[in-house]
Amino acid sequence: MKDNPFLPGAARADVPEFTRDELGLAYRNSGALLELLTCDITPTGTHYLLNHFDVPVIAPETHSLTLEGAFRAPYSLTLAEIMAQPQITRPVTLECAGNGRAGMDPRPLSMPWMYEAIGTSEWTGTPLAPLIERARPKGSVQDFTFIGADFGYDKGVPHFYGRSLTPQDMAELEVMLVWGMNGAPLLPQHGAPLRIIVPGWYGMASVKWLTTITALEERYTGFQQVETYRFRAHPDDPGTPVNRIHVKSLMKPPGVPDWFTRARWMEAERVTLQGRAWSGAGVPIEQVEVLLDGEWRAAELTGRADTYAWTGWQIDWDATPGQHDLACRATDAEGNAQPLVPDYNTGGFANNVVQRVTVYVT
Amino acid sequence: MKDNPFLPGAARADVPEFTRDELGLAYRNSGALLELLTCDITPTGTHYLLNHFDVPVIAPETHSLTLEGAFRAPYSLTLAEIMAQPQITRPVTLECAGNGRAGMDPRPLSMPWMYEAIGTSEWTGTPLAPLIERARPKGSVQDFTFIGADFGYDKGVPHFYGRSLTPQDMAELEVMLVWGMNGAPLLPQHGAPLRIIVPGWYGMASVKWLTTITALEERYTGFQQVETYRFRAHPDDPGTPVNRIHVKSLMKPPGVPDWFTRARWMEAERVTLQGRAWSGAGVPIEQVEVLLDGEWRAAELTGRADTYAWTGWQIDWDATPGQHDLACRATDAEGNAQPLVPDYNTGGFANNVVQRVTVYVT
Repeated sequence: MKDNPFLPGAARADVPEFTRDELGLAYRNSGALLELLTCDITPTGTHYLLNHFDVPVIAPETHSLTLEGAFRAPYSLTLAEIMAQPQITRPVTLECAGNGRAGMDPRPLSMPWMYEAIGTSEWTGTPLAPLIERARPKGSVQDFTFIGADFGYDKGVPHFYGRSLTPQDMAELEVMLVWGMNGAPLLPQHGAPLRIIVPGWYGMASVKWLTTITALEERYTGFQQVETYRFRAHPDDPGTPVNRIHVKSLMKPPGVPDWFTRARWMEAERVTLQGRAWSGAGVPIEQVEVLLDGEWRAAELTGRADTYAWTGWQIDWDATPGQHDLACRATDAEGNAQPLVPDYNTGGFANNVVQRVTVYVT
Repeated sequence: MKDNPFLPGAARADVPEFTRDELGLAYRNSGALLELLTCDITPTGTHYLLNHFDVPVIAPETHSLTLEGAFRAPYSLTLAEIMAQPQITRPVTLECAGNGRAGMDPRPLSMPWMYEAIGTSEWTGTPLAPLIERARPKGSVQDFTFIGADFGYDKGVPHFYGRSLTPQDMAELEVMLVWGMNGAPLLPQHGAPLRIIVPGWYGMASVKWLTTITALEERYTGFQQVETYRFRAHPDDPGTPVNRIHVKSLMKPPGVPDWFTRARWMEAERVTLQGRAWSGAGVPIEQVEVLLDGEWRAAELTGRADTYAWTGWQIDWDATPGQHDLACRATDAEGNAQPLVPDYNTGGFANNVVQRVTVYVT
């Protein structure tokens, strides 16, 4: 393999960088296949997974959702009752907050994502806000907590996975209560039988295997809300919460791969490079630039299916013989652009540095 | 984390063992979630993937299969014509030949599977043998080759993924030509729109994205047939081919996990341990033994859905406080049993060493 001039990756294969625990997370938390970025909807089974604990297997026929705490009219609904609510289906792009972590230096020890923790699915459910209003939350409510059925330990702390949203978040975000994905029932690993989708925010907010919504008259202090998913400059920094997805773009790597190194090879020809771009909170993509032969050139935007779905882009490239280092960079309508070097934080969150792809053209 | 007595994995996290290229393969080639071993059929999207090159996206409406070479009556069929053949649906357990590779010492550099490259799906298709007979293979045929649409490089050699079966293999194996999985059309990453399933053999034989079947009057020498997937004792050993799945068993790890180390924790109680066992070529499982408190005890076999599907097993265990090192070991009806130490080969194939699970009981 080392004799092969277009496979420089063979050399780096000799240097172990990642721990067994990181690999153990990579087995479980599967990533998108970048060649399938040509698909508007990520094929079922290739949407990224980030599950903190074991996937619970829940019988849908006995599952119910309980709204409790500081509500004037707390209640429970069976899954069948929830599925009788007004139904909507929306494509939403989700990204793991830890996407890009493996590109940070020093690399935080957690799931070592490079670019793959991304996906767009057609989610079927009902708007959540009316169901919360029906329970008549008290005016003193500070947080609505969303608790899943998945249980385990993190840093020695046992807990059900839980996250919260403030009343203001609930008013601003179009949160969905979801039971379907890509025209089929939710799969176990995606939160069956019931989850929420918080469009425009990183995936940690979209709690799976939802069992309980609790209204709190104080701020929620669950582990996944206050200990993790915060931007911290150093370990003692209380930090700020991770929420909105940062602007980002990815390209389908051109050419064909080498099996082991995933180095890309192609013949000299005119090709159309394709990819996707997205930003948080439904903010549209304004521009995607692609680095071709050392020059940033504007790609054509091919649109998006819905407010919270990614935007397609494409650009023609005359690939000439030699090594080419490609990159893509998106800017959103608020002027946010991808950085050329990662913004460091101790958790390795929200790394939206530009993707770089090396191609060998013969 | 290091202060937590039931999380010894924290220490090993400090030692990098795996290369970036190995991790790159782990992003793409997702594994089963062992907690879902309780499901007879692996939930869609959690069946293991091992794709050598990029997943091709193929339009089903224009796809066809061509039978060519040493046939007296070569022909092509559209996908629609193939789907009009007699339809069968069978649960088949598939395992990657490289499953367990990361447990070999020294570890061969390739996809570093530990236990996860396993899955059982309901495959829908038609028996392949009658379609090959219809093309009237010449008596001189030595190999039938199965060529996929996936293309790339391995060790500098460009090729479409291809494998072969001899006329005798075709007579003995119940090879299926498959267009459906778990009641839905094949997904792109599982070979859409057409693949074969070779029940009882490791997954490398079950060619995806099938385009061509060629009858050869000499032996097939494609890269994936002669260069890889062979048991070699050393690099210059011509070796013997990998084919039949070796007897194996896995358990659902009891208790709940720590997020990062995946260490298992549970409270002292009587629990029912559950798992699956399987062997190659449809050979039934005769016995599963589970190592409990230092003693191998026979588990109850709970049966299998079909000849090529895994067998369930379970055993009760009175978990007492302390650290417990569990293991499971299957024996098939031919007397093949799992080894306690891996059988080494240079490619890291067919490692069916017993699974070991450490649990901390409080």
